[in-house]
Amino acid sequence: MTTTIPREQWYVAAYGVEIRDELFHRTIAGESILFWRTAEGTVTAVSDRCVHRRFPLSQAPTRLVDDQVICGYHGFTYGSDGRCTAVPGQTRVPRTARLTSYPIREQDSLVWVWIGDPARAADTPIPRAPWLDDPAWTVVRGLEPLAARFGLLVDNLLDLSHETYLHGGSIGTPEVAGTPITTEVDDEAGVVHVSRHMDDAECPPFYARSTGLRGRISRWQDIEYTPPCLYLLHSRIAPVGSVPRPDGTDPDAFHVEVVYAITPETEHSTHDFWMVARDFALDDAEVSAFLAEQNRAVVRQDVVALDVLETVVATDPEGAQELSINIDTGGLAARRLLARQLGAGAGGVR
Amino acid sequence: MTTTIPREQWYVAAYGVEIRDELFHRTIAGESILFWRTAEGTVTAVSDRCVHRRFPLSQAPTRLVDDQVICGYHGFTYGSDGRCTAVPGQTRVPRTARLTSYPIREQDSLVWVWIGDPARAADTPIPRAPWLDDPAWTVVRGLEPLAARFGLLVDNLLDLSHETYLHGGSIGTPEVAGTPITTEVDDEAGVVHVSRHMDDAECPPFYARSTGLRGRISRWQDIEYTPPCLYLLHSRIAPVGSVPRPDGTDPDAFHVEVVYAITPETEHSTHDFWMVARDFALDDAEVSAFLAEQNRAVVRQDVVALDVLETVVATDPEGAQELSINIDTGGLAARRLLARQLGAGAGGVR
Amino acid sequence: MTTTIPREQWYVAAYGVEIRDELFHRTIAGESILFWRTAEGTVTAVSDRCVHRRFPLSQAPTRLVDDQVICGYHGFTYGSDGRCTAVPGQTRVPRTARLTSYPIREQDSLVWVWIGDPARAADTPIPRAPWLDDPAWTVVRGLEPLAARFGLLVDNLLDLSHETYLHGGSIGTPEVAGTPITTEVDDEAGVVHVSRHMDDAECPPFYARSTGLRGRISRWQDIEYTPPCLYLLHSRIAPVGSVPRPDGTDPDAFHVEVVYAITPETEHSTHDFWMVARDFALDDAEVSAFLAEQNRAVVRQDVVALDVLETVVATDPEGAQELSINIDTGGLAARRLLARQLGAGAGGVR
Repeated sequence: MTTTIPREQWYVAAYGVEIRDELFHRTIAGESILFWRTAEGTVTAVSDRCVHRRFPLSQAPTRLVDDQVICGYHGFTYGSDGRCTAVPGQTRVPRTARLTSYPIREQDSLVWVWIGDPARAADTPIPRAPWLDDPAWTVVRGLEPLAARFGLLVDNLLDLSHETYLHGGSIGTPEVAGTPITTEVDDEAGVVHVSRHMDDAECPPFYARSTGLRGRISRWQDIEYTPPCLYLLHSRIAPVGSVPRPDGTDPDAFHVEVVYAITPETEHSTHDFWMVARDFALDDAEVSAFLAEQNRAVVRQDVVALDVLETVVATDPEGAQELSINIDTGGLAARRLLARQLGAGAGGVR
Repeated sequence: MTTTIPREQWYVAAYGVEIRDELFHRTIAGESILFWRTAEGTVTAVSDRCVHRRFPLSQAPTRLVDDQVICGYHGFTYGSDGRCTAVPGQTRVPRTARLTSYPIREQDSLVWVWIGDPARAADTPIPRAPWLDDPAWTVVRGLEPLAARFGLLVDNLLDLSHETYLHGGSIGTPEVAGTPITTEVDDEAGVVHVSRHMDDAECPPFYARSTGLRGRISRWQDIEYTPPCLYLLHSRIAPVGSVPRPDGTDPDAFHVEVVYAITPETEHSTHDFWMVARDFALDDAEVSAFLAEQNRAVVRQDVVALDVLETVVATDPEGAQELSINIDTGGLAARRLLARQLGAGAGGVR
Repeated sequence: MTTTIPREQWYVAAYGVEIRDELFHRTIAGESILFWRTAEGTVTAVSDRCVHRRFPLSQAPTRLVDDQVICGYHGFTYGSDGRCTAVPGQTRVPRTARLTSYPIREQDSLVWVWIGDPARAADTPIPRAPWLDDPAWTVVRGLEPLAARFGLLVDNLLDLSHETYLHGGSIGTPEVAGTPITTEVDDEAGVVHVSRHMDDAECPPFYARSTGLRGRISRWQDIEYTPPCLYLLHSRIAPVGSVPRPDGTDPDAFHVEVVYAITPETEHSTHDFWMVARDFALDDAEVSAFLAEQNRAVVRQDVVALDVLETVVATDPEGAQELSINIDTGGLAARRLLARQLGAGAGGVR
């Protein structure tokens, strides 16, 4: 099968809080990986297959004891660097007995894992989402399993005109689909920008109830997508007519940073990490609960639609056509950057 | 995969009453089709895939508003002819934005859809089943999903000797398997006829209770199959010795027209439409309920057997053999006509 | 697909008590087989596919009447030798109408079936497990379905070091993994022997409660595997220091014969027949219940682990490596003998 997943890339594997001093498993880009947080507090990641007979180390009764993983099948034992330290029935441990170890970075509250040649990890920057780990912002978040290839979620998020139809009643209003977009691609940095500035728009419930704004609003959607994994939606909500001041401050506006980490699990399934950071009502638990519940509902609507679409794409006869229009400029640019990454990483082992 | 489904053919897609002024989806011969009844009362059928990103139009929150379908993903809008009338974010609608439209005929209470090149639809006659829409007959009917290729249902219905074994206790008696058949094939019209006239036979419960006949009967089964879709069983039940009069009338007999529309859904599943029309006890609700319940039970017995057989055919090693005897003459003729249709339609797009 | 199942072999199809005077179905080595016990008391086995249209004869409403199988679809009727004796609609029975018949042997309470060319069955000896049918021994047993290829169960049983990890708390103690093994292969007879003699070991609950022994024990595990199907574990439990007498008697020890019949059902599933025979506490129902419950729990632990491992083996990318150490000597020898059988049987029909 031809893969659609770029290698030689950083992917978000987990929220930092998910990984504690116990075995944790997640499949990332088709690789079955075992994580835990060591006694020193750092996250470690190794292949989830015992070198002996490929037993998954995430499977009971495998245990973590003093930062050593003891395989639940025959007792092969590994340190946090993946090196085997004990085998049954003999004292000599074969020199080649070692689990593949994955480069890991913890940044902006996220755990990133490198998929590809470890030697190239250090030189590859990880895109930032500083609001996620900043006391001036309050964050709600979640993780939904998506039974669809990650490219369908990229398409979805790069074209927000779908909010009007799929998410009417929460975040979609007629202006989203009706307002033209501008698209810019930074080929060197590998980033796609898509902007839609609605200067006199209906305020959807998602923002009306969280900000307290009444009446029509100025609503800006500025997308910044760094393929393959990190998607930022800089959302600015303000009374009609309000603009940021020349000095860059923007005291009359409400800012929401909607962050998605789009991590392929397999060729046909995706980890849909979603986060909503805001710079207002920081300690208002009711607003937090409302935004978490609303955004989860929005993500669930996407998941239902994309799960169906995956079935269509996977089972329809070959040669099905698509028709693209202006709203697709951002999505097509994203596909082009992903195809470039796919080509560049093609030399990787798989 | 080699297909077993002839193209350039009319297939029954639905009972007329199933299609109202709302979106209705059914897969016919592997094609995913969206139906609705327009304000003018005619049935329309278009491809169930939005031209934009292939979202299934039968999927919520797609809506039908004033005979226009509004896609639930990005709002592409289509008329009943499949032509796109609106897209998001721009006023110009691309000229090529059009859903495939399917020729439809409503006849004898059935909705027929043409699968293949639309230009050939008009010249291809649709076989008739006039009893289904005639006040001189009362009809009961149903639709069972069958997880088996449609050819297995054709085999089943062309060889009614199975009634004695699979449907003993309702419609099967020893005479059905024991009485030889005569088979005639009209190659030009493309029709298979199989007749079994039992002149002194046990009356099975299906007919005893519905007609009120006591004692042994004359029971005629005259099959008329027009591949691929329409199967008629002209069933005549009368006291022993009674025959139709020279003028064609047949006042001492009870007539039941058992109709099956055998519509392939996919290569491995089938829509099993069944109808039972009678020319007696027209207003007797109890007889209607009895025949509906009995025939549904018979169809369910076939479905259970054929679902199992599909698994056998689909999973047994290649090269499995069959052994055919006299009772299979009709079924083998039907297979030959289907193979001819398959060859003739092979030029169709798929 | 390349098969991993040797042909031209005897396999255990059932416990003798499972097969009575009614139709019984089991798939053995990918072949769907119908069994019953004839009026004369012998087990007969024929192909589970009617020669007419391949209907599974194990499927209702097929019936067994006076040692004749009457197909539930069209009434084809077969004797216990597989020969067809009646067909519907005609008196002549085609001479070629005959079900494939399988050689069967009933021995040591087990029903063995020959998979391959029947002419070679008589010359191929069936390995023995006489304790299963000897009043001097009491037997408990069971059958667990395993969703894994049979080779994974062979690996599992040939390397008992896994008892320490997967079955700690019932049969595993530290000494099992810690004690080296000796392996001998009888290439001519086609038998693998693996021995582990622990002369001063903890007594696990499985043996402590069944034998009543207190304190540390001498525990011998002598494996005798005759590929592909029969696995014997001669288990000897005795007070520390006790050894068999020169005359071969062993009055101070408790003997348990653990027998597995490892029968491939398909390429990816296995019938896991397990039996535990003992020469002590013969009439103690409580010991029987305890050993049955404990061994079933052990087998269930293996099943859970191997079902997971099957998924790994079946879905991980090609080219996955294993690393073998001393404890694997027996398992590797078993694989070698199985590969030899696979090569020898490759000429068989499939």
